[in-house]
Amino acid sequence: MPAEPIYRTSVDPQWIDYNGHLRDAYYGLILSLATDALMDRLGMDAAYRERTHCTLYTVEMHIHFLSEVHRSDVVLVNAAILGSDAKRIHAAMRLGCASRAEPAAAAEIMLLHIKQGPTPAVTPFPPDIARAVEQFREQSAGTSFGPGSRQMALRSRA
Amino acid sequence: MPAEPIYRTSVDPQWIDYNGHLRDAYYGLILSLATDALMDRLGMDAAYRERTHCTLYTVEMHIHFLSEVHRSDVVLVNAAILGSDAKRIHAAMRLGCASRAEPAAAAEIMLLHIKQGPTPAVTPFPPDIARAVEQFREQSAGTSFGPGSRQMALRSRA
Repeated sequence: MPAEPIYRTSVDPQWIDYNGHLRDAYYGLILSLATDALMDRLGMDAAYRERTHCTLYTVEMHIHFLSEVHRSDVVLVNAAILGSDAKRIHAAMRLGCASRAEPAAAAEIMLLHIKQGPTPAVTPFPPDIARAVEQFREQSAGTSFGPGSRQMALRSRA
Repeated sequence: MPAEPIYRTSVDPQWIDYNGHLRDAYYGLILSLATDALMDRLGMDAAYRERTHCTLYTVEMHIHFLSEVHRSDVVLVNAAILGSDAKRIHAAMRLGCASRAEPAAAAEIMLLHIKQGPTPAVTPFPPDIARAVEQFREQSAGTSFGPGSRQMALRSRA
């Protein structure tokens, strides 16, 4: 797996909710900012978006919240590409804290390459981006960040 | 299904990203605030949390992003309870805009009842809350908000 975190952030005090730790939605914001970092890594940065009018839309996201994150934590996100095709990236992310080994969240995200305009249209990746996606996917081979996406259901617990 | 939205909000300008519409993470924030509204509705409001030290933790969330939300939109969230047991609520939510019929997102959320303290512990709902959950669940019978939670995968498209 790509050993280096793709994104790192401290915890904004406004992200703490009445339970005294990171509100669920801000795990999502950190994962969203990490997706921006992944886009930069793959060549779909601000200059690319400006030049091509192409970007990624998130079409699906599944998060497992595994442990609390606190105000003092430094959050690290690792990313993997589990699958891809001409227009889509199926990414996995692990959200952890610098001070401990266990993950705080595991997520899967489906991203779709879109050409923006009056009518946004799904568009294939250009060849250089497709190569970067493929390369990142090869580097990710065998990566697992814990519980993956699944149909949600009440399951009995031991 | 409960016909009335459980939560309603305008779109904060800070929630708009470089793509010119609501950033994925802020769909999640609106769903999180709607979960607070659902907690209020079920009797797990701030006074309850203060009195009992009990609250809900989100353990899993799966969002399908179905259409763009813009700065000028008024967002409405409908909620259903698909399932529950002594300590857990499996909720579904539909995020829509006041100005159009099609949904902007469909989500499922698994919530766990926790007694906070030095060591947070899973705790059964007290009888009055359990009754409120059951009643909301009965009112939700047969509700579907569109694509449900599923294992995420690249699927071929027609």
